[in-house]
Amino acid sequence: MIRVAILGGSGYTALELMKILLHHPHVEIAAVTTRQETKEGTPLVSELHPILARRLDLRCEPFDPDRLVAQGVQCAFGCLPHGVSMSCIGPLLERGLRVIDLSADYRLRDANVYAQWYGESHHDLAHLAQAVYGLPEVYGEELPSAQLVANPGCYPQTAILGLAPLVAGRLVDLKDILIDSKSGVSGAGRTPKLTTHFPECNESVTAYGVGHHRHTPEIEQVLSDIAGEPVEVIFTPHLIPMDRGIFTTIYAKPTRSVQEPQLLELYREYYAKAPFVRVKTNVPATKDTWGTNFLDVTVRVVRGRILILAAEDNLVRGASGVAVQNFNRMYGFPETTALL
Amino acid sequence: MIRVAILGGSGYTALELMKILLHHPHVEIAAVTTRQETKEGTPLVSELHPILARRLDLRCEPFDPDRLVAQGVQCAFGCLPHGVSMSCIGPLLERGLRVIDLSADYRLRDANVYAQWYGESHHDLAHLAQAVYGLPEVYGEELPSAQLVANPGCYPQTAILGLAPLVAGRLVDLKDILIDSKSGVSGAGRTPKLTTHFPECNESVTAYGVGHHRHTPEIEQVLSDIAGEPVEVIFTPHLIPMDRGIFTTIYAKPTRSVQEPQLLELYREYYAKAPFVRVKTNVPATKDTWGTNFLDVTVRVVRGRILILAAEDNLVRGASGVAVQNFNRMYGFPETTALL
Amino acid sequence: MIRVAILGGSGYTALELMKILLHHPHVEIAAVTTRQETKEGTPLVSELHPILARRLDLRCEPFDPDRLVAQGVQCAFGCLPHGVSMSCIGPLLERGLRVIDLSADYRLRDANVYAQWYGESHHDLAHLAQAVYGLPEVYGEELPSAQLVANPGCYPQTAILGLAPLVAGRLVDLKDILIDSKSGVSGAGRTPKLTTHFPECNESVTAYGVGHHRHTPEIEQVLSDIAGEPVEVIFTPHLIPMDRGIFTTIYAKPTRSVQEPQLLELYREYYAKAPFVRVKTNVPATKDTWGTNFLDVTVRVVRGRILILAAEDNLVRGASGVAVQNFNRMYGFPETTALL
Amino acid sequence: MIRVAILGGSGYTALELMKILLHHPHVEIAAVTTRQETKEGTPLVSELHPILARRLDLRCEPFDPDRLVAQGVQCAFGCLPHGVSMSCIGPLLERGLRVIDLSADYRLRDANVYAQWYGESHHDLAHLAQAVYGLPEVYGEELPSAQLVANPGCYPQTAILGLAPLVAGRLVDLKDILIDSKSGVSGAGRTPKLTTHFPECNESVTAYGVGHHRHTPEIEQVLSDIAGEPVEVIFTPHLIPMDRGIFTTIYAKPTRSVQEPQLLELYREYYAKAPFVRVKTNVPATKDTWGTNFLDVTVRVVRGRILILAAEDNLVRGASGVAVQNFNRMYGFPETTALL
Repeated sequence: MIRVAILGGSGYTALELMKILLHHPHVEIAAVTTRQETKEGTPLVSELHPILARRLDLRCEPFDPDRLVAQGVQCAFGCLPHGVSMSCIGPLLERGLRVIDLSADYRLRDANVYAQWYGESHHDLAHLAQAVYGLPEVYGEELPSAQLVANPGCYPQTAILGLAPLVAGRLVDLKDILIDSKSGVSGAGRTPKLTTHFPECNESVTAYGVGHHRHTPEIEQVLSDIAGEPVEVIFTPHLIPMDRGIFTTIYAKPTRSVQEPQLLELYREYYAKAPFVRVKTNVPATKDTWGTNFLDVTVRVVRGRILILAAEDNLVRGASGVAVQNFNRMYGFPETTALL
Repeated sequence: MIRVAILGGSGYTALELMKILLHHPHVEIAAVTTRQETKEGTPLVSELHPILARRLDLRCEPFDPDRLVAQGVQCAFGCLPHGVSMSCIGPLLERGLRVIDLSADYRLRDANVYAQWYGESHHDLAHLAQAVYGLPEVYGEELPSAQLVANPGCYPQTAILGLAPLVAGRLVDLKDILIDSKSGVSGAGRTPKLTTHFPECNESVTAYGVGHHRHTPEIEQVLSDIAGEPVEVIFTPHLIPMDRGIFTTIYAKPTRSVQEPQLLELYREYYAKAPFVRVKTNVPATKDTWGTNFLDVTVRVVRGRILILAAEDNLVRGASGVAVQNFNRMYGFPETTALL
Repeated sequence: MIRVAILGGSGYTALELMKILLHHPHVEIAAVTTRQETKEGTPLVSELHPILARRLDLRCEPFDPDRLVAQGVQCAFGCLPHGVSMSCIGPLLERGLRVIDLSADYRLRDANVYAQWYGESHHDLAHLAQAVYGLPEVYGEELPSAQLVANPGCYPQTAILGLAPLVAGRLVDLKDILIDSKSGVSGAGRTPKLTTHFPECNESVTAYGVGHHRHTPEIEQVLSDIAGEPVEVIFTPHLIPMDRGIFTTIYAKPTRSVQEPQLLELYREYYAKAPFVRVKTNVPATKDTWGTNFLDVTVRVVRGRILILAAEDNLVRGASGVAVQNFNRMYGFPETTALL
Repeated sequence: MIRVAILGGSGYTALELMKILLHHPHVEIAAVTTRQETKEGTPLVSELHPILARRLDLRCEPFDPDRLVAQGVQCAFGCLPHGVSMSCIGPLLERGLRVIDLSADYRLRDANVYAQWYGESHHDLAHLAQAVYGLPEVYGEELPSAQLVANPGCYPQTAILGLAPLVAGRLVDLKDILIDSKSGVSGAGRTPKLTTHFPECNESVTAYGVGHHRHTPEIEQVLSDIAGEPVEVIFTPHLIPMDRGIFTTIYAKPTRSVQEPQLLELYREYYAKAPFVRVKTNVPATKDTWGTNFLDVTVRVVRGRILILAAEDNLVRGASGVAVQNFNRMYGFPETTALL
C-alpha cells in the first residue's frame, strides 16, 4: 500500500485524481492539502467536493512537508498552479518523496523557454534537471526510476500522440504542422472568470491564446525528441461549451506519397503495446472517451495532406488519469490499474 | 423622438434593452452610463458588448444627472444593482426625468419589507411612495401618468400573470399556493461567481434561495392587490443550465369544482386585451418565448388541483422587454412597438 | 463468479450497467443481446458503444433463452423497452435464471393499473405476482430470495426515498403531496425524436406528461406500502437541457408542527444503514451525484410546509446502479460492491 | 410592398427567415408552403413554430405554383431540401417569379461537380445556368437583375469572406489553404437523427464529412472566381454542442512577407463598403454574432503563417439573413433593411 498525498485539493484535477485513486487497490490517500480556510480551519475534502462525501471523509491540511513525512506519505501528486508548484515540490523531493507534478513547472527542460512562455523565471533549476516528462507512451522506460515526474499538459498529449508515429518515421514535414484543438471549459480551471461565466461561454465558440499558448513549446520539445531534430508547430486552442473533452485536428504535409490504410496500420503497430491509445477506423468523438484514460485517434489522407483526428477526456487522460498511469509505471503496478 | 439614457450599461439587461430600443422608431439612445473604466476612460458600448458594434457606436459616460439633463435625456432606464439604484434615481426624478427602474429598489411598497428581505434600509422613501409597479397587465392604467416605474422581477411575472385570473376570481385558496420556478443562468447577472462558473452549473440542476428568495414578497404584494386580501405563497427557484428562459409550475387548490376547458376560457377572457400573454392549449416551453416579450401560459386540472404552467424569456419579458412595454404605455405609443 | 447477461444492449441503461459491472469483482458479462443487425450480423458491443472498446470486446447475440442457459448465464439484467420485456423475462425465469428487469413491466403489482397507465394488457401475470420491487432501502429484506426483481423507475426513487421517513411516521397529509421533478434528457432513451433533437430541447425547459406520467402509480404503490394506507400524489416531470441527473422538489403538508433540525435528524436516523442515501444539510445539486449511486436529500420547513429536495444520477442510482445494488443484495455481496 | 412566399416552412431556416421578414417594411408574407399534414389539413405556421403565434397567424398551404401566382406572390424563398428544390424552382421562374433558393441546388455552376458531390444528377440545367451566387460582398452587382439567386452555404461564407482579401490580392498560396470549422447543431437541420439526439451530441465534439463535405466545391468555386485561377482547399467541419454559430479557423501560407497591422488594414479596406462584415482587432466569438447578420473576422500572423478567424450565426448570416440581404439588393432596398 502506497500512502499518497494530493497537494492543492480544491481544483478539478485533484477531484478527478481522488476519484481514480479511490479505486486503486495499492493506494491509500493519506493527506490532501489546501490553502483554503473555513471558520473551522481547513475544510473537509467533501466540503470542497460534495460528490466525495462518504467516499473520502478526510479533513484537508495546510501544506507542510515534514507533516507529510510524519504521516508516512511516500508519493505526492501536485495539483497546484504553475509558479506555486516549483516552491513546494523541492522540499518534498529533498525529504525523499516521489512526486508527480500536474502543473507545468517541470515540463520544459529549458528554463529560458519556461521564462519566455510563462513570464517568470524558474527558481528550482536543480530539480528541473531531473524531471521525467510523464508521457508513458514516449518516456515510459524512464518512469520506474524517476523521482520527479512532470505530468504532461492536456492539449500536448493529443498533439504528441497524434503525431508521434509520423514524426518518428519522418513521414511529414517537421516545419509544417498545424494543430487545431477544441476543449471543454474545465480545462480553464475552477477559478471564476468572465470568460468562463456560464452566460458568456455557453452557446459560443472562440479561439484563445492564438500564437502564444503555453502548450506550444511543450508539444515541440517532445516531438523534437521523437524526431531527433527540431519540430515546429502552430497550435490554436478553442473553447467549447461543454464540461470536458478535447478534440484535436492536425494537418501535416507528407514527405512522400502515403495512403490511409498504410497509415492506419502504422499507427496500430506504433501503439500495439499502448493500452490507452485506441487507433480507430471511424472518426473519434470526445464523448466516447468521457471519464476514461483512452486517447482515440484516426488518420485520413485528404488531397495529399495527412489529417489526424484525436480525442480525449482532458481531466482524465489529459491530467489525472495519465498521472495514475505514470504512478503505476513508477511503482511497477500493471499500467491499467484503476484506469479501466 | 424620446431621448433616453441607460444607467449601468454593462449587464445583460442593459444589453437586451439596447437591442430592443434600437428597433424603436420613437427612441434615441442618447447616453449609456457605466462605472467601468478602461485606459482610455469610459469604454465604448461595443467594448462592453461586442455584439453591438456597428449598431450602437457610442461611448459610455459616468453617471451624472446634470449631464443627462444637458443632453436632453427625458427618460432613463435604470439597470443598476439594487441598493445602488436608489441612490441614483432620486436626483433624476428631481430634475424632471421619467425613470423605469429595472432594479428591485422601488418594487416593494413597504420599506420594512424591503429591509427584511434585502438586508438593508431603504433610503429613498419619498420616491418609493410614488413608484408604480410596472406590470402592464395589472397596473397598466397608472403608467401614462407615472414618473417612476418599478420594473417587475423576472420570476414574479410568471407567478403573477399565471395566477392573476384565478386570484382575481377567488377561485383558489389564497394561502395554499406553491410556485416552483426554473431559470436560466443569465438571471444571476454578469458578475462571475463559483455557482455560475461553467463547469459548476453546466450539466446540473439545483434549487437556491429556498424559503427566502427576494421575489417572494413581490409576488405576494401584487397578488394581494389583485385578490383584495392577503395572499401567501411558497416560492422555490431552481438554476437550469441554459442561457435564458424561466419555466414556472404553479400548484393551487381550487375553492370549488373546476374543469380545464372553463379555466382555459377564463384565462383567454382575462387576457383578451393583453398582446403579450399567450394562453395556450399545449404545455409551453421556454424556447418558444426565446427573444420575445411573450408570456406563454396554460392551465391543467390534475386530481383536483390546478396546475399553471408558464414560460417566458427572463431577459426580455422578464426585464428589458416589459420595460419597453411600460415605456410605450407611459408615452402613449402602441403597446407592442419594437416588441414584435 | 456470477455469469450475467444484458438483454437489450444498445441503450443508455445497458451501457451504464456494463460500465459498472466491469468493475464488479464477482461478475462476468457472459452475453449481451440486441435486436440490432449490421452487415456482419449482430454488432460488437463496442460498435453500439464505442466508449467500451478495449473494455468489453464481446459480440452481441440475438435473444435466445436456451443459448443463455448453455452459456452458463445465471442472472439476466433486462434493459428492454416495456411491453417487450414481459415477453422475454418469463422464459428465463422458467429456465431457472434470476432476473433484474429495468423496464416498467413488473413494477406495478396490479395488472389493471398497468393496463390503465401503459395502455396495454399485461400478459405475464404469473411472474408479475412474484416480482419484488427493487428498492433496497424499502424492500431490501426480500431481495436475497427474489428470483425476479423489478428495478425501480428513475423519478420514483427520488420521490419515494425523499418522502419515506415522513410517510412512514405519518408526519404529512398523505393526500396532499406535490412532486415537481426535473430530469436530464438521457431519461428519454436513445431513440431519436423531435422533442429530444438537440436544437429543440437545448436551451429550453418544458413540462411533459402533466397529470398522466406513468411513474405516478409506481410512486403511490410504494408510498402506500410504507404508510400502510393509500397515498396520493401529483407528479410533474420537466425536461432539462443536460445529459443526466434528476432533481426533485417535493411539497408536503405536515400533520403537526415540525422543525427543520428534528426533520433532518429523523432522516439521518431513517437512513442510518443506507449506504447510498446521503442526508445533507445543504441543498443538493445533481452534479454532486454525477456518475454515482448516491441519492442526496435534504429537508426544509417553509411557512409551515415541508419541502424535500432530492438529487440523483438518473442512469446510475435511477437505473443501472440500483440494479447492481439489488444484485449485490440478491447474491449476498456487500451492498456497495462496484458502486463506490 | 413585395408579396413573398416561403417554400418549405417547417425547418429552422424558414423560421429564421419569417422572423426577419416580419420586420421588413416592404415585405408581406403571403404564403408559406409545407408538405406536412395534420388532421385538419395543412398546419398553421404557429403549429410548426409556436414561437410565431401572434406574429404570423397564417395557415400553410401545399406547394402549388399557380396558386402562388394567383396570390400575387412576386418572390419566393426556397427552404426546401436539396434535390427537392430543383423540382420546384423551375415552375416558379417560368411563371415570372424571382426566387432566392436556400438549398444547395443552384450553387455549383458545373452540373458534373454537383453530381459528384451530391450523388445525384442535376435535372434543371436550364435554370442552373442563370443562377447568381448570392454572396452580396462578391457578386452584389449581379443581384439587381437576377431572377434566380442561389443563397450561399453557411460554412462557405465564413471561408470565402475570411479569405477573399488575401486571395484577391494573391497574397497566399492558392493550393495550401486549410479550413477548420466548428458549427452548432441547428446546421444539421430539424430532422431527428442519432447524431443530433441530445444525449449523443451534447457534451461532445467530433469532426464529420472529413475530406468530402459538400461545401468544399462551393468554397473553391467562389474563391477561384475571386482569384482568377483555381483555388484548392481542405475543409474540415466539426459539430459543437450549441444551437447555432459557426467559428472558422483558416490557415494560409503567405506568398511574401506579411505583418498583422497591414493585413488588418487590407481587410478593413476590402470590406469598407460591406455593412455586415466587421473586421475586428480581437478574436471573434460566435456569441457576439448571435441573431445578427454580421460576419466577424480578424487575422493573425503566427510563425510565418496567416491565420484567419471568422464567426457568424449560421442561421442568420449563414442562411436567412443573407437571403434577406440578397433580397434587399435585388429589389433596390437599402442593404441593411430588417437586418440591424
